[in-house]
Amino acid sequence: MFSAVEIIRVKRDRGELSTEEINWVIDAYTKGIVADEQMSALAMAILLNGATDREIADWTAAMIASGERLDLSGVGKPTVDKHSTGGVGDKITLPLAPLVAAFGVAVPQLSGRGLGHTGGTLDKLETIRGFRVNLSNQEFIAGLTGPGAVVCAAGDELAPADRRLYALRDVTGTVESIPLIASSIMSKKIAEGTDALVLDVKVGTGAFMKNPDDARELAQTMVRLGAAHGVRCSALLTDMNTPLGRTAGNALEVAETLEVLAGGGPSDVVELTIALAQEMLALAGQPEADCAAALTDGRAMDAWRAMVTAQGGDPDAPLPVADETEYVTAESEGVITRMDAYDVGIAAWRLGAGRARKSDPISAGAGVEILAQVGERVAAGEPIMRLHADDPTRFAAARKALTGAVDIGERGVRAPLIIDRIG
Amino acid sequence: MFSAVEIIRVKRDRGELSTEEINWVIDAYTKGIVADEQMSALAMAILLNGATDREIADWTAAMIASGERLDLSGVGKPTVDKHSTGGVGDKITLPLAPLVAAFGVAVPQLSGRGLGHTGGTLDKLETIRGFRVNLSNQEFIAGLTGPGAVVCAAGDELAPADRRLYALRDVTGTVESIPLIASSIMSKKIAEGTDALVLDVKVGTGAFMKNPDDARELAQTMVRLGAAHGVRCSALLTDMNTPLGRTAGNALEVAETLEVLAGGGPSDVVELTIALAQEMLALAGQPEADCAAALTDGRAMDAWRAMVTAQGGDPDAPLPVADETEYVTAESEGVITRMDAYDVGIAAWRLGAGRARKSDPISAGAGVEILAQVGERVAAGEPIMRLHADDPTRFAAARKALTGAVDIGERGVRAPLIIDRIG
Repeated sequence: MFSAVEIIRVKRDRGELSTEEINWVIDAYTKGIVADEQMSALAMAILLNGATDREIADWTAAMIASGERLDLSGVGKPTVDKHSTGGVGDKITLPLAPLVAAFGVAVPQLSGRGLGHTGGTLDKLETIRGFRVNLSNQEFIAGLTGPGAVVCAAGDELAPADRRLYALRDVTGTVESIPLIASSIMSKKIAEGTDALVLDVKVGTGAFMKNPDDARELAQTMVRLGAAHGVRCSALLTDMNTPLGRTAGNALEVAETLEVLAGGGPSDVVELTIALAQEMLALAGQPEADCAAALTDGRAMDAWRAMVTAQGGDPDAPLPVADETEYVTAESEGVITRMDAYDVGIAAWRLGAGRARKSDPISAGAGVEILAQVGERVAAGEPIMRLHADDPTRFAAARKALTGAVDIGERGVRAPLIIDRIG
Repeated sequence: MFSAVEIIRVKRDRGELSTEEINWVIDAYTKGIVADEQMSALAMAILLNGATDREIADWTAAMIASGERLDLSGVGKPTVDKHSTGGVGDKITLPLAPLVAAFGVAVPQLSGRGLGHTGGTLDKLETIRGFRVNLSNQEFIAGLTGPGAVVCAAGDELAPADRRLYALRDVTGTVESIPLIASSIMSKKIAEGTDALVLDVKVGTGAFMKNPDDARELAQTMVRLGAAHGVRCSALLTDMNTPLGRTAGNALEVAETLEVLAGGGPSDVVELTIALAQEMLALAGQPEADCAAALTDGRAMDAWRAMVTAQGGDPDAPLPVADETEYVTAESEGVITRMDAYDVGIAAWRLGAGRARKSDPISAGAGVEILAQVGERVAAGEPIMRLHADDPTRFAAARKALTGAVDIGERGVRAPLIIDRIG
C-alpha cells in the first residue's frame, strides 16, 4: 500500500514517483482518500522540483483514467480540436471552429469558463441569445456528425481528477507549473476523444508563460503527451504581449468574430485563425485547404450559423451592449509602441467581463475596445480605447489597471504574432 | 487586504513576506479563513525555499499571539524548561524535571504525545497508575509552586495556530523544515511562560535532523528566537544515531527512569540528564549545583514521588508489563559497532509502543529492551535485545525493522553523546 505522506516526501526530496505511486495518488485523490491539503503540498513540490517526462505521462494517464474517455469513432469524420493556453482578447475558437468544420472536419471543442484576467469561450458564446453550452453526450455527437463544430462545457465524467486538482491549484498558488499545466490540458483533450489537436501556446505578459523558453517546453511536453496517447498534435507559439484583436470582453469578442466570419476583422485575428485552421486541417488530412477563401466566401459564416443554431442560439439576435462607455485617450502625440496584454485583461475583468470566483456573474457587454493598436499613430487626446461597463463605478478601477499599459514613442511595429511551430 | 494565494506565491517565488503578511496569514489560518490546502502549499514552499530570520521571528510571534501567554510570575521561583527535538529511548524529561526541581527551581513542562517512531513523554507518564496529564492552569501553577516539576499536556489556548499547523504538517510531508520546526517549538515554549529554556537538539538516524550542520542551524535559530522574546536559552547538540539508554517503550522507559533516580541506570542517560540539569540550573542562577549528588542521595527521587503524587499518580504501583517477549540474538561473535536508533524506534513502534495516527491506542508495556549496546562484546547467539508486545503477531514486523540495525565487528566504541553546545 501507498501513503500520501511518503509520496509527497519523494517529490519534496527531488525523487521520482513510480507509475504505481502516481496511479494510486490520483485515484485516491479522486475518491477523497488523499486530502486537498496533501495534494496541494504535492503540487507545490512538483511546481518547485519538477517532474520527469515519464512522471508527467503517468500523471496524465492517471487523470484520464479517473473518468471516461469519449469514443468519437461514430462521428464518421476526422476530428481535430484546438486548445489555447489563454490570453487577452483570444476569441480565436469562435471563428476557428466553424471555419474548420466548413471543410467537413469535426471540431469537438470542450471549453472552459474565464477565471482571472483571461476570458472563457463559454462565457462569450453565452452572450448569444439562447445558446446552450451544457450538452448531453448524445447532443455532442449529433453536433459533430451534423454541423461539425461543437463548443460546449466538459461533462463531469471527463477527467474528474483534473477538475478537482485544477480548482485546488487555483487557490493554492500552484497553477504555474509546466508538468501540471501540460497534464491538465492534455488529460481533458485526450479524454474528449479527438483524433488530433493543435495547441496555441501563448507567450508574453498576458499569458501564463512569460518567456518563449517556458512556452516551448510546455508545447513540447504537450505534443509528446498527445503522441503517447495516439493523438496527433502540433503547436504554435504565439505572442501575447499585446491583446489579440480589437476587443477583450464577451459580447465584444463575439461581434469581432462576426466581422472575421464576414471576411473582415482585425488582421491579427484573421492571421492566427487561418494559421491554426491550416494546422488543424493538415492534421485532418487536408494540408492544401484554402482557409482564407472560406472566410471571405461565406462558408465559415454558414458553418457558424449552423453551429449556433444547433446549440439553441439565435444567430440573428442582437448582442448585449453595456450601459455605459468611457474613453481612454492618448497622453501625447506619437506611435503606440507597447500595449500591455495583462493590463488590458485586468481592465476588462474589472469592468465586469471576468470573474474573481467561479460562482461570480459576468457582465455580457463589459470589456475593452481597442481603437488604436501598436504601430498606429495617435494625436494627443485622441481615444485609444473605449471602456464598456454596466456599472459606471467600475471605470476608475479599470483606468487604474491601464496606468502605464500603453507607451507612445517615435516609432513602433507589432512583433510577429507567430513565434514558432512545434510538432 | 491580503490574499492567501498572493502570500503563497511570494514564498514560492523565493520572496520575503512582510510582518503584516505573516500576521495576517497566521491569524486567518487560526480563524479558518485561510484553508488547510493553502497553508500546506505555503508550508511546502517555506520548506523548499526557506525563510529569513526576520520571517521566522515574525512567524513565531504570530503563533504566540494566536493564543494566550501564561504568566508564571506568581510561582515565586525561577522557571526553566527543557525541550528535546525527539529521539529513540529519549526519556530524559522524566528524571530531569524532578532533579532540577530538587534544587528549588520550577520546571513547567508542557509535553506532547508520541507520533511515528519517537515516543511521547505524556504516553510514558500515563503508564503510571492514576497519573493525570490534563491539568487546569490553576493545577499547573500549584504544581510549580509546590513540588516544582509539572509535566502535563499543553492547553488548547496555547499557540492554537501551532497546534493546527503541526497536525497539518504531519500529514503533508512538511515537518522537516528548520524555520517551521523552530517556530513551532519556540512558540509553545515562549507561550508557556518559562523564564529560561534548554534545548536538546538530537542529531542522527533516529532524529529529525540527520546531520550536525542542520541541527546546529536549528539550535541557533531557536536560541535567537528565545532571546528575541526575553527567554534565556541554551542548546546541546546530542547524538541520536544510537538509542538512548537501554529501553524504547513507555513503561520500560519509566522503569529505567526509576533506576536513574535511584542512583543507577545506564551511563548515557545519567550523563545527559546531568548535563541538561546543569544547563538548566545555570540559566536559573545555580551554575555550581551538584546534580550527580542529587541523583544518588535520593533528593531527585523524592522530587519525582512528589510530582507523580501531585498529578494523581501512585509512585509505588507496579508498572504495566507486556504479555509476550522474544529475544533478538547476535548473528556472530564480536563487538557491537552500530545500533541504528531509527530502526530500534520503528521496531518499538511496531511492537505497540507508538501510534500511526493521533487517535490510535498504545500498548503501555510494549517496546524494545536493549541487552547489549555499542562497544559491548557478544557471543554468537547471545541475546542483544528483548522485544516486548501484548500482541505476539507484532514480533515479525518488529524483527523486519531490525534487519540490518546492528553491526558486529572487531572493535567499536560509542560516539560522544554531547556533540556541541550553543548559547
